[in-house]
Amino acid sequence: MPRRIVGPEIEGLIQLLSKLPGMGPRSARRAVLHLIKNRARLLDPLANAIDDVRRSVTQCSVCGNIDTSDPCSICADHGRDRSIICVVEEVSDLWALERAGATTGLYHVLGGVMSAIEGIGPDDLSIDDLIHRCADSSVREVILAVNATVDGQTTAYYITERLRGLDVTVTRLAHGVPVGGELDYLDDGTLAAAIKSRRTF
Amino acid sequence: MPRRIVGPEIEGLIQLLSKLPGMGPRSARRAVLHLIKNRARLLDPLANAIDDVRRSVTQCSVCGNIDTSDPCSICADHGRDRSIICVVEEVSDLWALERAGATTGLYHVLGGVMSAIEGIGPDDLSIDDLIHRCADSSVREVILAVNATVDGQTTAYYITERLRGLDVTVTRLAHGVPVGGELDYLDDGTLAAAIKSRRTF
Repeated sequence: MPRRIVGPEIEGLIQLLSKLPGMGPRSARRAVLHLIKNRARLLDPLANAIDDVRRSVTQCSVCGNIDTSDPCSICADHGRDRSIICVVEEVSDLWALERAGATTGLYHVLGGVMSAIEGIGPDDLSIDDLIHRCADSSVREVILAVNATVDGQTTAYYITERLRGLDVTVTRLAHGVPVGGELDYLDDGTLAAAIKSRRTF
Repeated sequence: MPRRIVGPEIEGLIQLLSKLPGMGPRSARRAVLHLIKNRARLLDPLANAIDDVRRSVTQCSVCGNIDTSDPCSICADHGRDRSIICVVEEVSDLWALERAGATTGLYHVLGGVMSAIEGIGPDDLSIDDLIHRCADSSVREVILAVNATVDGQTTAYYITERLRGLDVTVTRLAHGVPVGGELDYLDDGTLAAAIKSRRTF
């Protein structure tokens, strides 16, 4: 048990910040000191920003995205292609695809993947909602952008089965060499997939 | 300009968090998502912790430490050796020494070092306060724990000059090989200093 250097209020803030992903006790301590030193520029605005988020944050009842409006700004955007629904595991995947500008379609957040080990079945995910959305005649394609893990692929197969009979094309992300990646560092499975799906130059 | 994925409140919080040391836009985004997902366990307590810190944080009028009481918990602790004052540049240095349990004495935070280039003179630092504290007959030793930079050493010499005439011993941190460090990776200056200050095994 190390000596307590600072008052419990500061120590409490350090402990909370150290629980954020990418932070540890040492970087949290540095961050708190930085916040306190830049009170007007950082600490006060941060307190307000957190209050704003707490007041306004909500989950989109259509796609499961996290935003400050319901439906979220993506579902409410009429400039987007409503014939495509891109299915992801988590909100972070949605944000990553959106940052990349990878699709102009809509999204659907499953909230996880089926897992026999963790006891997560289809009813624990928002799969029924997805089927419901796809029953709408305007949807033409479902992109399964789930992770290339065993559980992710199991979930993808399950969803494909459930969508059978509906008039939608089900697609999945291409496997291959990451853009900018070096072959030497890639695993065998990715290399094999990249060769198998090779294209004319 | 990337597409705005989320509402301005969430985006504002991401931007503020990305200004913390050790954080970037990507890790701040991950942290905010983590906060929102763990609302009861993280977001709400964080809001309260920041409010607590804003209400209670203050600078110690004796040593310049940041704490929730004035005098700070170190200056107020009567179990500490009041004959030693350890002089540091920044509060972060004080916290680092304190974490290491390196001294049982008191501290004095200069608030920086003298710098001809940045136009920081002795009057911009809390050197007068230090001399004042040292004039108290109970102080026997001043440890100059400033950084081993040119500006740090200039400041150390200046303080030593100012303390001449007072009945205090002025010491500085030892130079040498870091504990656990490998010789191969050390700079020449450190190696030379370590050889020069070698000790009987």
